[in-house]
Amino acid sequence: MTATAPSIDLSAHGALLLALVLVAAKLGGEAAVRLRQPAVLGELLAGILLGNLPFAAVAGIGSHPVIDVLAQLGVLVLLFEVGLEETVRDVLAVGASAVRVALLGMLGTLAAVWLVAAWLMPDKSASTHAFFAAALTATSIGITVRVLKDLGVGRSREARTILGAAVVDDILALVLLAIVAGWSGQGGGSLAALLWMIGKTIGFLAAVLVFGGRVGPWLLGLAARMRVGGAQIVAGLVFCLALAGAAQAVGLAPILGAFAAGLVLEASHSAPFVARGEPPLARLLQPLSEFVVPVFFVVMGTRADVRALLRPDTLALVAGAVAAAVLGKLACGLGVARGVSRLAVAAGMLPRGEVSLIFASLGTATLLGGKPVLDATAFSALVAVVVATTLLAPVAVNLGFAQRRRRR
Amino acid sequence: MTATAPSIDLSAHGALLLALVLVAAKLGGEAAVRLRQPAVLGELLAGILLGNLPFAAVAGIGSHPVIDVLAQLGVLVLLFEVGLEETVRDVLAVGASAVRVALLGMLGTLAAVWLVAAWLMPDKSASTHAFFAAALTATSIGITVRVLKDLGVGRSREARTILGAAVVDDILALVLLAIVAGWSGQGGGSLAALLWMIGKTIGFLAAVLVFGGRVGPWLLGLAARMRVGGAQIVAGLVFCLALAGAAQAVGLAPILGAFAAGLVLEASHSAPFVARGEPPLARLLQPLSEFVVPVFFVVMGTRADVRALLRPDTLALVAGAVAAAVLGKLACGLGVARGVSRLAVAAGMLPRGEVSLIFASLGTATLLGGKPVLDATAFSALVAVVVATTLLAPVAVNLGFAQRRRRR
Repeated sequence: MTATAPSIDLSAHGALLLALVLVAAKLGGEAAVRLRQPAVLGELLAGILLGNLPFAAVAGIGSHPVIDVLAQLGVLVLLFEVGLEETVRDVLAVGASAVRVALLGMLGTLAAVWLVAAWLMPDKSASTHAFFAAALTATSIGITVRVLKDLGVGRSREARTILGAAVVDDILALVLLAIVAGWSGQGGGSLAALLWMIGKTIGFLAAVLVFGGRVGPWLLGLAARMRVGGAQIVAGLVFCLALAGAAQAVGLAPILGAFAAGLVLEASHSAPFVARGEPPLARLLQPLSEFVVPVFFVVMGTRADVRALLRPDTLALVAGAVAAAVLGKLACGLGVARGVSRLAVAAGMLPRGEVSLIFASLGTATLLGGKPVLDATAFSALVAVVVATTLLAPVAVNLGFAQRRRRR
Repeated sequence: MTATAPSIDLSAHGALLLALVLVAAKLGGEAAVRLRQPAVLGELLAGILLGNLPFAAVAGIGSHPVIDVLAQLGVLVLLFEVGLEETVRDVLAVGASAVRVALLGMLGTLAAVWLVAAWLMPDKSASTHAFFAAALTATSIGITVRVLKDLGVGRSREARTILGAAVVDDILALVLLAIVAGWSGQGGGSLAALLWMIGKTIGFLAAVLVFGGRVGPWLLGLAARMRVGGAQIVAGLVFCLALAGAAQAVGLAPILGAFAAGLVLEASHSAPFVARGEPPLARLLQPLSEFVVPVFFVVMGTRADVRALLRPDTLALVAGAVAAAVLGKLACGLGVARGVSRLAVAAGMLPRGEVSLIFASLGTATLLGGKPVLDATAFSALVAVVVATTLLAPVAVNLGFAQRRRRR
């Protein structure tokens, strides 16, 4: 029987490869969770293991169409979920101190990592340096939140500052991503090109907040009047996909659209569904996200090249970038309000995660003169920095809060 | 910005195309539901409309990697769900009369449609005739169940016979699919080849019932002891994908594996998850299935060629096949127990649905001498027969039960 589907065959190897990726993801995630680390760390390491096994069939796993499509769907669903967790009102309610913390941490990281990248990758273009640095600006506070809860300081002023700054950080990182990706894709480009990208990004977000803030709830309201099954989750996904496509159409990263779609949808928009006994949108998305998001992280892991990573120059780059990522982020401590521990807040903002990986992934896909802005070495180094900062974070947060206690 | 992903880009058009497919699916499904028809009928018609619009971008929508991968995932999830609804015990508890009804209906259809296909497609090979006929053997009683409920005869002996026969029908159809697809793929082949396919199919099902019946529950039990999120749904999907891959590896249709995986998993295996407040597996799968299954039906619709369908010879084929599919299925009436209306049962078994479409899809993908066993015309004719029998079913069931009442 030669049952080859017209274009792609999930049938051929796809089903088994997908099963393998899912098993690796959950085993890695489970190991990480048991070691009190975020699941994403284990998924990433499982991917690194899988991608560097000496079997040809497994080596190319990340580029198999079935895995690739689900990984890309995974990123969009992930960013949509991140957006859903925040409302526009939450963002506007964030204090000035949180905005200062987020902004200073990003600028500090951008400057410090850019310098290190330019120093340790002298033969690479300014686009590569900019992309590499921008990727490490985004904080991922999942691990921080867990450590804060463990320390019993989840409701401290430090914790509230970190949480507020994380919201701003998400948005600033995505705006920066859109700008840097657009600017790098044009070979660094002129100041005019940079300003055009900034204008376009801000324009897109403004348009989504104004129009999307009406269209999204209207779409869910329409779905609530439908009798066919699955109207709510499909309406949500359609909104997410349409804005991702719109972002792409104007030359921005699709994830910016997916995030913005989540941002303008609020829990209250699910009310008519909840009233008739259906779960709200965020809960309906959960099983889908628990299935496709880990595929993305495993794929990111498979693309990290351990042999490239163990070369002395790459190790130097990783060490330099980790140091710069930590020191750069410490700058955020300058933004905290009086009476709040600078070190505790800065420590909480250290870990890098999904947004950095998305940046890295986009960097390998952004071509400049036929070559990717981030090559395999730079990509692998970024994955290593994400792993290192996530492992460092619990130690740093403990130290930061210990120092705060001593002061009082 | 030239952000082209390494292999496939959901980013390029994928996100917008997927949004379009989902909107078409839900609008079609909603229209069908409001007209008291099954959602799948509307999804299929929405696909036919979409695929025959005069826009090049939309014409190729079904073969876009993102849509194609999700459609294929959709079939596996659909068959897994169908299997989950039935337990091995249910199947064994089906009465002898239900087995007779299912078997006679299938053999009657196979013979009648084969004759018509050989008569109206004389230039095609025996493989094509066999595939075309086998595709129409499978009953899809979704619409019947709804009509029976509306008539208030959902608990009649006729209804119980239909439900039991439908369970047997599902299994027989998948076994027949495996056999015919394997045999056709070898150019019709010898009696030995046919016996080998039958043996392999029965052997696979027996192996799944014996070993899978232990492995599946063990896998879910293992997942229940995990702390990472999404363990249950991922364990279920891994089991489904692994058996689909195993079926493919031994030369059978992956959907047979997906169905068998669902068959051996029972609601009781979700008990440890339910005990800690999580929904059971079938409910977790629902949002995923409501998202990906309609993609499959829309894609099937887009592949139907309306222009080919309107040619006189294709119309004759459709008319002949509909007549044969109806008359052939009437044979199942001979199998009913004493005191049960033959006509009412036969009418309930008339509608064709998802399994026929899967058959048809596999037929276009099964190559024989470099050409698909089912060409665009045969495929489109099958889609038309599915639509026609589904539309006929409510009328036929009403007539069948009216005749039963007159007799009493």
